[in-house]
Amino acid sequence: MMKVAIIGATGYSALELIRLLNHHPYVTITEIISHSHYGELLSDLYPHLKNIMEKPLIEYDLSYLEKEVDLLFFATPAGISKDLIPDVLKTSLQCVDLSGDFRLLKKDYEKWYKKTAPASEIQEKATFGLAEIYPEEIRKAVFISNPGCYSTAALLGLIPIIKTGLVTKKGIIIDAKSGTSGAGRTLSSMTHFSEMDESLIPYKFGEHQHTPEIEYYLSKEAGEEINVTLTTHLVPMTRGLLCTMYVPLTQPKTAKEIEKLYQEFYEKDLFVRLHPLGSLPQTKQVVGSNYVAIGIHVNERTQQLIIVTAIDNLVKGAAGQAIQNMNLMNGWSVQAGLDYSPVYP
Amino acid sequence: MMKVAIIGATGYSALELIRLLNHHPYVTITEIISHSHYGELLSDLYPHLKNIMEKPLIEYDLSYLEKEVDLLFFATPAGISKDLIPDVLKTSLQCVDLSGDFRLLKKDYEKWYKKTAPASEIQEKATFGLAEIYPEEIRKAVFISNPGCYSTAALLGLIPIIKTGLVTKKGIIIDAKSGTSGAGRTLSSMTHFSEMDESLIPYKFGEHQHTPEIEYYLSKEAGEEINVTLTTHLVPMTRGLLCTMYVPLTQPKTAKEIEKLYQEFYEKDLFVRLHPLGSLPQTKQVVGSNYVAIGIHVNERTQQLIIVTAIDNLVKGAAGQAIQNMNLMNGWSVQAGLDYSPVYP
Amino acid sequence: MMKVAIIGATGYSALELIRLLNHHPYVTITEIISHSHYGELLSDLYPHLKNIMEKPLIEYDLSYLEKEVDLLFFATPAGISKDLIPDVLKTSLQCVDLSGDFRLLKKDYEKWYKKTAPASEIQEKATFGLAEIYPEEIRKAVFISNPGCYSTAALLGLIPIIKTGLVTKKGIIIDAKSGTSGAGRTLSSMTHFSEMDESLIPYKFGEHQHTPEIEYYLSKEAGEEINVTLTTHLVPMTRGLLCTMYVPLTQPKTAKEIEKLYQEFYEKDLFVRLHPLGSLPQTKQVVGSNYVAIGIHVNERTQQLIIVTAIDNLVKGAAGQAIQNMNLMNGWSVQAGLDYSPVYP
Amino acid sequence: MMKVAIIGATGYSALELIRLLNHHPYVTITEIISHSHYGELLSDLYPHLKNIMEKPLIEYDLSYLEKEVDLLFFATPAGISKDLIPDVLKTSLQCVDLSGDFRLLKKDYEKWYKKTAPASEIQEKATFGLAEIYPEEIRKAVFISNPGCYSTAALLGLIPIIKTGLVTKKGIIIDAKSGTSGAGRTLSSMTHFSEMDESLIPYKFGEHQHTPEIEYYLSKEAGEEINVTLTTHLVPMTRGLLCTMYVPLTQPKTAKEIEKLYQEFYEKDLFVRLHPLGSLPQTKQVVGSNYVAIGIHVNERTQQLIIVTAIDNLVKGAAGQAIQNMNLMNGWSVQAGLDYSPVYP
Repeated sequence: MMKVAIIGATGYSALELIRLLNHHPYVTITEIISHSHYGELLSDLYPHLKNIMEKPLIEYDLSYLEKEVDLLFFATPAGISKDLIPDVLKTSLQCVDLSGDFRLLKKDYEKWYKKTAPASEIQEKATFGLAEIYPEEIRKAVFISNPGCYSTAALLGLIPIIKTGLVTKKGIIIDAKSGTSGAGRTLSSMTHFSEMDESLIPYKFGEHQHTPEIEYYLSKEAGEEINVTLTTHLVPMTRGLLCTMYVPLTQPKTAKEIEKLYQEFYEKDLFVRLHPLGSLPQTKQVVGSNYVAIGIHVNERTQQLIIVTAIDNLVKGAAGQAIQNMNLMNGWSVQAGLDYSPVYP
Repeated sequence: MMKVAIIGATGYSALELIRLLNHHPYVTITEIISHSHYGELLSDLYPHLKNIMEKPLIEYDLSYLEKEVDLLFFATPAGISKDLIPDVLKTSLQCVDLSGDFRLLKKDYEKWYKKTAPASEIQEKATFGLAEIYPEEIRKAVFISNPGCYSTAALLGLIPIIKTGLVTKKGIIIDAKSGTSGAGRTLSSMTHFSEMDESLIPYKFGEHQHTPEIEYYLSKEAGEEINVTLTTHLVPMTRGLLCTMYVPLTQPKTAKEIEKLYQEFYEKDLFVRLHPLGSLPQTKQVVGSNYVAIGIHVNERTQQLIIVTAIDNLVKGAAGQAIQNMNLMNGWSVQAGLDYSPVYP
Repeated sequence: MMKVAIIGATGYSALELIRLLNHHPYVTITEIISHSHYGELLSDLYPHLKNIMEKPLIEYDLSYLEKEVDLLFFATPAGISKDLIPDVLKTSLQCVDLSGDFRLLKKDYEKWYKKTAPASEIQEKATFGLAEIYPEEIRKAVFISNPGCYSTAALLGLIPIIKTGLVTKKGIIIDAKSGTSGAGRTLSSMTHFSEMDESLIPYKFGEHQHTPEIEYYLSKEAGEEINVTLTTHLVPMTRGLLCTMYVPLTQPKTAKEIEKLYQEFYEKDLFVRLHPLGSLPQTKQVVGSNYVAIGIHVNERTQQLIIVTAIDNLVKGAAGQAIQNMNLMNGWSVQAGLDYSPVYP
Repeated sequence: MMKVAIIGATGYSALELIRLLNHHPYVTITEIISHSHYGELLSDLYPHLKNIMEKPLIEYDLSYLEKEVDLLFFATPAGISKDLIPDVLKTSLQCVDLSGDFRLLKKDYEKWYKKTAPASEIQEKATFGLAEIYPEEIRKAVFISNPGCYSTAALLGLIPIIKTGLVTKKGIIIDAKSGTSGAGRTLSSMTHFSEMDESLIPYKFGEHQHTPEIEYYLSKEAGEEINVTLTTHLVPMTRGLLCTMYVPLTQPKTAKEIEKLYQEFYEKDLFVRLHPLGSLPQTKQVVGSNYVAIGIHVNERTQQLIIVTAIDNLVKGAAGQAIQNMNLMNGWSVQAGLDYSPVYP
């Protein structure tokens, strides 16, 4: 069994790693690490883990971890892993970073995260873990920068079409809606139950830090610079993320033609569910699982191609994709430990 | 006191008329009418109306109503009022139709509603009750066709800018999200609690019957034909509707300049709340009230103007606007019976 | 118009006072007071109040208030009003305290609130504002201690039967369930949306500070000492409070006999809705209104009388009842400013 | 691999069997059966099963099933399995019935279900599948009657104490609250999203069909006849069931003493989570898993013992316990296919 440690173990992405790894055939969680709660039992903080994870939280200590484990998952808030990972890369440990610290170029990181970026030479060692798109790179990697939740849903919906000449590269709009777990467990008025319940809350327009991540990989795939308009909204539900994306067609195309293109693009990808034309994904249909559901619609009157993608933000948008990357890095079946059915209803 | 009757009294729009008219200084509800439940007490069907509305439901009978009341609210499902209103127009009764039967041109009605349209000469007698935009026409009207919920939120957000030369008339996108009460009280799997709860559900892409209503009035205001891309989504909450609308600018403009334009456009409108730049409307901030909240954002990297509007779909999107129209028709204060504060939290 | 000030104006009870007083025929809000936010506009903190309450928050200054207003509503957290009200009582101001500071005897307050109690001679000047039960006392009062939300729902359900010999005075159980707004706007993990959503949370068993308030007034009405078992649960909804109460019968009685007793007890009370036998109150049927709905069931196999009461915790359980008390104190119609229909659905 | 068929495959309990069995190490689902939808693909009805369950639904045919499978799960509505199972018992098939058809004595079934009961000699062949209480009987069984969701939560909380002399056998109260999935997928006004959302709904007081099931097994364990007062409430969430149970103590006991008794009773039961004193179970802490969480509180002022139990009504309350029973019947680890962590948050 491969031994792993989770750093930042009290956050929601870490809880989800623990839930999913509970079933993984090749992995055991050896250490759980938390600076703010070290010494405590995670199951005291989170009674849902009683009998499941009874280890105490420990402090981060790389020289200890180097001897005890094989892989580190960083599930830390922004600005932590960028200072810790440079030393990890000097060891033989594999490393998957779920935070945004290594997803962006230096200038973009500093602009969007408003923090000092990691050194460019370190940043370049990170492989972007968008598992359906870059499986070959990931198989060879030892250090993965795991994509953001919005980025995952947006890029998996847009990349198949952006690589073609069928759409204009200007005017792409991503209207994204997420459950509140994407905002984490830090308390705020916006996510106080009485204020979030029965409300739909647009936030961070023009400022969401996943914007440059989406643009960078879209541009890379298209071979030209692409800017997108991304808006983000909080929906009164805990899990689930849906992107409704609008892409102007350059020439009349039917939904059937577009569908064929997506079918071919994703035909070997076990976690991609292409909905039949006329049916659109609903978030509840993927919650609890690593699936991404994709629906296609062509508005023939306006020649807009509309792509809808739905994921569980904590699974495919965070912990599930991190495990998928670990599976690829280690040559395991991509579904190992990830064959969860959605929890429905 | 003016005497009114409500036809289709067991639907959600009718319940909301009853709630709001409870406070109206110049109006009393004289009759409540239901074909499917006549003879029953509305407060038996809906115990929240105990002590508030203890009248029995009666059958529709125009010759009786003509003698007893002054105004009819039709809160009937699609396809009912179109057959009843032609005879109403031969009487001296005022009439406000909350259904979609008279909102569209004959060909559009038949295409989008898939029903036989009312005769064009009758349709032309209807005044479109978008109260902030057509107050003069409404003041002179006796027969109002009340706008749809999505149409109200979309048009109030778009009309101020569409009248200018600042935006292209192509590529307008309306990403609309609604609480479930907009789907009415007809039972369906989609709105079964266990399936709708914790889910975000895109529906009727390319087919929503409010599309031609929005396009018709946008085109009229712009002086040229405009097509829009409208998508609709159900959100797991009962009330509230939010439109995120994307309008390509033809020339660089700051949000400040756009804001000024909206401030001037709506400066006398008591139900319009323009959010300060940097703040966006949340649905809970208007629920229970007749307000429309409008937020403005300019994405300077993509030159997209983004307008966000939020309403309570049952108030400003239905019953509240119907009362606002009645107030205008009768020369009363526009706020009569509508000075409700939102219910927050 | 009577002029009122609200102290503690940023809390949920205060927001509800503002919403409800918006319609009051005899009252105007002259000042809103907040220690933590003075100088700010309340409508900047709460955009739902735009155009409705545009006053700035000021600091508490009794000598100023004495000149400017006629009545003070204290909507402050526990432990504040007990220090401020003694000086208020030296003025001619009327005063309604929505906090728990004056609801209990000295020893009970110190035990259950774990704070130093107000002096007994001041506490004795407070009239307990359970409006349906003590209207005569309230009419003569100048200083009202407004009941707690759980206490209101429990006492209005139990007092009619406790005054009779039909039930044992031992073994009364109150299983209470509340929406989250009762827990206020202070941020906590328990009321963080991601953790409260889709969960049912029992809390404060054996420790809820409304217990002695319920016992004191039950004992007073019964003429003997009564202890109750109260449990409290948070439900994933914002508003609404329901008590399911179990009272052992001393002799076989049918529900019909019990119903008659309640009908007579409450026959003149406009805010009490007695459900017909076989129908039980649902919280949504009262939300937004000052009604208390009461349902009666007799389990004939176990000779338990079960009383169910439902209220909106922020209206009948706080701000609505405070206004009802003000109406009584001033000889106005009890419904003045409170004739709101529930917001349904 | 053991081959199983699921009858009534379109209901929520069946969907949950499919989700859970997806991971079972010794079982494969060979056939899914539905009378109302035969010929259709289950994944067309439920897109969340795309790539997971792509079998067509077939009609029930015992002679075919006898040859193809080893075990039948009946997840049918009340009144179906009682007519089908008598013939099943003539074959060598194992059988687990999730419906209530074989849970009650003939007279109780007819009274509470208002249907003709199965013959007593068949009913007696059913083993009641309350897995923690009757493991030995279940290990020897071929035909299991799986307990109801309320019954499971109530009995697992009450049986340890009812077997002692510490409590009175009269006056036991079970105040039960459930998410809506317990009410199934049949459409109704009560579970229409707009009416159920933000509401707490008491229902079926005195009539819930799980009452006699609870009383029968409590009486059996106590060795004397016990009646309970059961009330049931729907909570606005999809999954999760919580019972707050009140049991009068016959003699002063501390919570610590009671806790010890429960610890000993359940010390070998892997799915039972006893909360430390002072902590009470929340439904979200078990959702998605087969755990039952138990909390203990003693109200020393009233000498009421309060037991709180929380389960996922579709897992421990239905499909999970059915699998647990299958595991026992076949001598497998009780956790086989059930080692799911709760889905939190």
